[in-house]
Amino acid sequence: MGSYTTSSSPSKLLFRQLFETESSTYTYLLADALHPEKPALLIDPVDKTVDRDLALVKELGLKLVYAINTHVHADHVTGTGLIKTKVPDVKSIISKASNAKADLFVEPGDKIYFGDIFLEVRATPGHTLGCVTYVTGDGPNQPQPRMAFTGDTLLIRGCGRTDFQGGSSGKLYDSVHSQIFTLPKDTLVYPAHDYKGFTVSTVGEEMLYNPRLSKDKETFKNIMQNLNLSYPKMMDVAVPFNMLCGLQET
Amino acid sequence: MGSYTTSSSPSKLLFRQLFETESSTYTYLLADALHPEKPALLIDPVDKTVDRDLALVKELGLKLVYAINTHVHADHVTGTGLIKTKVPDVKSIISKASNAKADLFVEPGDKIYFGDIFLEVRATPGHTLGCVTYVTGDGPNQPQPRMAFTGDTLLIRGCGRTDFQGGSSGKLYDSVHSQIFTLPKDTLVYPAHDYKGFTVSTVGEEMLYNPRLSKDKETFKNIMQNLNLSYPKMMDVAVPFNMLCGLQET
Ligand SMILES: [Fe+2]
Ligand SMILES: [Fe+2]
Repeated sequence: MGSYTTSSSPSKLLFRQLFETESSTYTYLLADALHPEKPALLIDPVDKTVDRDLALVKELGLKLVYAINTHVHADHVTGTGLIKTKVPDVKSIISKASNAKADLFVEPGDKIYFGDIFLEVRATPGHTLGCVTYVTGDGPNQPQPRMAFTGDTLLIRGCGRTDFQGGSSGKLYDSVHSQIFTLPKDTLVYPAHDYKGFTVSTVGEEMLYNPRLSKDKETFKNIMQNLNLSYPKMMDVAVPFNMLCGLQET
Repeated sequence: MGSYTTSSSPSKLLFRQLFETESSTYTYLLADALHPEKPALLIDPVDKTVDRDLALVKELGLKLVYAINTHVHADHVTGTGLIKTKVPDVKSIISKASNAKADLFVEPGDKIYFGDIFLEVRATPGHTLGCVTYVTGDGPNQPQPRMAFTGDTLLIRGCGRTDFQGGSSGKLYDSVHSQIFTLPKDTLVYPAHDYKGFTVSTVGEEMLYNPRLSKDKETFKNIMQNLNLSYPKMMDVAVPFNMLCGLQET
């Protein structure tokens, strides 16, 4: 995919974490506050909180460019479709591997620029086949410490389930260990959900204290096999919508 | 009150925002991560999430020194009493003006040091008579931008009610305008509660977009007089407990 704009001017991340109570989903607003247009993106917006998010974008004087998903969610309807009806210039983004619809598709190694700041795309399948983690760039003028938007791949002291949507506990383990735990230890971990009131963690902390992913692979697979989770109540509604970028086909 | 320790070594804030779902309360963990003892404090801990908070303190290798309240809460029982039974060296702190019990009492202008970082105390009555706002210090090695822990005085796009506990809408208006809106505009606003999924705001944003406090004083007083709020269900339990630092007198 193309990149929004690049120049050598200084960049400064404006960052907001937003919470949707019903599905305990975190939406993230990122913008380059020093760029004259203040280009912004939303990661994992939820349909129910689109009005809140767009009001904030407006109050902060940002230009929303992208609405991005980490994966095809099963617990809420993505806000990307609704955002596009309200702000037509916004482009939706999802991974090519998700097989979902969107305006732009990303693959591992791609960079998503907003102003002079970028997110790099890392493939982290396991919760779903198409899950990706978006990581802020490594380089001058990029946020320090780095930030990893891990979706449901890595949660704070937990991880997403692996028993449907092409899930695989072995793949999730390999994804986390090869694509996330190899980042600098002070990298901030921002997941798509939290159910205990945590807002952020770090790679170093999860390597030590994640009760599932700090274990060896066989132990992890056993843990995941014995979770006995119930079927998510939103799944049959949410997944078909989210495969179409949150919009019903007309 | 005394200060924990002072030296001229460098400081680096470790910061965590934590959420208690039932009362929508934010608890804040702050520590000086570069100090050899990693001294830490908790602002507005909730009794129900004390175990989560203390586990995090332990995992991060911090030494919890203070458990602090912004005011006598009416919607939840403070965690300070429970924390003191589990970590006996911790000192509880509240404002002298609150008339509540605690180990240490602070007055406007006092500085609370943890390592080389400090919070300054600002009197912000109006939601209750004893409400204070804790603001990170102004000076070398102090966090930039500054951070204001505003309790229920200033919420994101809102404010605490002023119809009981010695509340006064006129006082709250004056507190916010003289003690908070005079801080640098990029000061981060971290309130004790949020009910819409916001995690942080800035002084500049609230000056412009707070639907109550951006108005003139008479309009504000009218808004507050016509809120018609119901009596908080936890009040008759929480306030007597919180006057005693979260512990029933024996
Ligand atoms: Fe998911
Ligand atoms: Fe309160």
